[in-house]
Amino acid sequence: MCPAPISENADRGYIIPIGGGEDRVKEMQIHRKFVELSGSEDADIIVIPTASMLEETGPDYNRIFSELGAGRVEFLPISTRADCNNPRFVEMLDRATGIFMTGGNQLRLSAILGGTLVAQKIRRRNAAGVPVAGTSAGASVMSEHMVAGGSSNSAPAEGNITLAPGMGLTNAVIIDQHFTQRNRLGRLLTASSYNPFLIGLGIDEDTAAFIGPDNVLEVVGSGTVTVVDASHLTHSSMWDAREGEALSLLGLRLDVLGEGCRYDLTERVAYPPDEHMAFCTLVAPNDTSLG
Amino acid sequence: MCPAPISENADRGYIIPIGGGEDRVKEMQIHRKFVELSGSEDADIIVIPTASMLEETGPDYNRIFSELGAGRVEFLPISTRADCNNPRFVEMLDRATGIFMTGGNQLRLSAILGGTLVAQKIRRRNAAGVPVAGTSAGASVMSEHMVAGGSSNSAPAEGNITLAPGMGLTNAVIIDQHFTQRNRLGRLLTASSYNPFLIGLGIDEDTAAFIGPDNVLEVVGSGTVTVVDASHLTHSSMWDAREGEALSLLGLRLDVLGEGCRYDLTERVAYPPDEHMAFCTLVAPNDTSLG
Repeated sequence: MCPAPISENADRGYIIPIGGGEDRVKEMQIHRKFVELSGSEDADIIVIPTASMLEETGPDYNRIFSELGAGRVEFLPISTRADCNNPRFVEMLDRATGIFMTGGNQLRLSAILGGTLVAQKIRRRNAAGVPVAGTSAGASVMSEHMVAGGSSNSAPAEGNITLAPGMGLTNAVIIDQHFTQRNRLGRLLTASSYNPFLIGLGIDEDTAAFIGPDNVLEVVGSGTVTVVDASHLTHSSMWDAREGEALSLLGLRLDVLGEGCRYDLTERVAYPPDEHMAFCTLVAPNDTSLG
Repeated sequence: MCPAPISENADRGYIIPIGGGEDRVKEMQIHRKFVELSGSEDADIIVIPTASMLEETGPDYNRIFSELGAGRVEFLPISTRADCNNPRFVEMLDRATGIFMTGGNQLRLSAILGGTLVAQKIRRRNAAGVPVAGTSAGASVMSEHMVAGGSSNSAPAEGNITLAPGMGLTNAVIIDQHFTQRNRLGRLLTASSYNPFLIGLGIDEDTAAFIGPDNVLEVVGSGTVTVVDASHLTHSSMWDAREGEALSLLGLRLDVLGEGCRYDLTERVAYPPDEHMAFCTLVAPNDTSLG
């Protein structure tokens, strides 16, 4: 479940985790930018509503993306592992210029899609430049190490977060959603401290991290993206804390990024909004000007 | 409401904010250590139950501290500003070797005690070496800048915290209590970012920060003390964010301190527990061995 290799002539497509609860009625700025990245009138967007158990989820997103000017939108009615090896679905993903995974239950997504042709195809299309967005459960599943569940309102503690293998579009981050709304900092600190290699992204509702081909993310939406960097930890009691004992984690770094802020996941540095660097730098999937 | 000056021959007494909800039945380790610092069988502890509206609060603490071996315990039945200028109460504080402020409503504490002889006497006794502890509201009121109220479950945002002048035992920190239990990190980040001079202390229930004469705090209890240091902020949108807009705060540092961890408030450095430096370093008020 590692990211698919990127060929020499292509940039990896945007990876766009959304914290859930995004505005689907008024400005719809997150969806709008996803449609733009997917090619607008030339877009061919595939929606994967598998995380949801609601029949209207697929058609709802068809309507939203069509209203926002996407040339073509279809959803894949995947509800079993057999569906995920349906050659017609794989073919549809092959011509997609944008892929969107809805909310619901991320374990349903990983348990149904994991190890199938559809999952493989999503990784390969993303590596070839196609933007992949996901909201709520669809955001969690994107990373190699996925937050499957855990406690809200918790201090950092071993066992307050359940990890599972995700879809593996990226292995640089671990993604948590509905972040401020559900008070999930404690469990994200736990996850980042399990292995400080992982950068924790805590994404608020109606907020998205547009992670570019250059591994720099930019925040869009009305909330914040909280970035947890545990790589400077000077002390952690993670490995020897007794059960139920409060953890000590010294030297954590935290950036709270509002709209327009950027974070370089390679260098682990945050940047304030820059009017000259604002969202116009996002480009359509076939434009390689970002280099 | 600044800390009273410390004379050349004395160390400031311990300042002991407690996050509320501390164990009052079983181990009572926080109260036990407070009684030890106050002199155990030689202790003369004065309880200030003014934050609480419950008649049993004062007698309850009398019982607790007596059970823990305090030589003498009394509470001051202060419920008006006139009470705070009662010479008998001032005299009782003058011979106190430990002062304890209960939970309740910190605005009740600051509004009734503020600017009276009792408040002045508490500051002077602390400056002369007497430990002052406070739980919940009694913890909040200790600092010069006091958290009077605010939102739980909130991202950092201008206006999500209400500040008021506190009792001013210290001006180095701002104290929030019931911290993890009520999800108050967002508002503490706001407070620290208003003026990064202030170190934010978020104290969990059943947890205390024993702030020593050397401005090094040590954590006691079953939860954590979260230290927010905003002094390395590289960008803050605090001053120009629109109302309701999510704030950007880049470069925050966070230490989550479990029991035995220490934090140097002067140097802004966290230390892991050190077996040789454990709680035996806490000394009785008249012992100046800590220098």
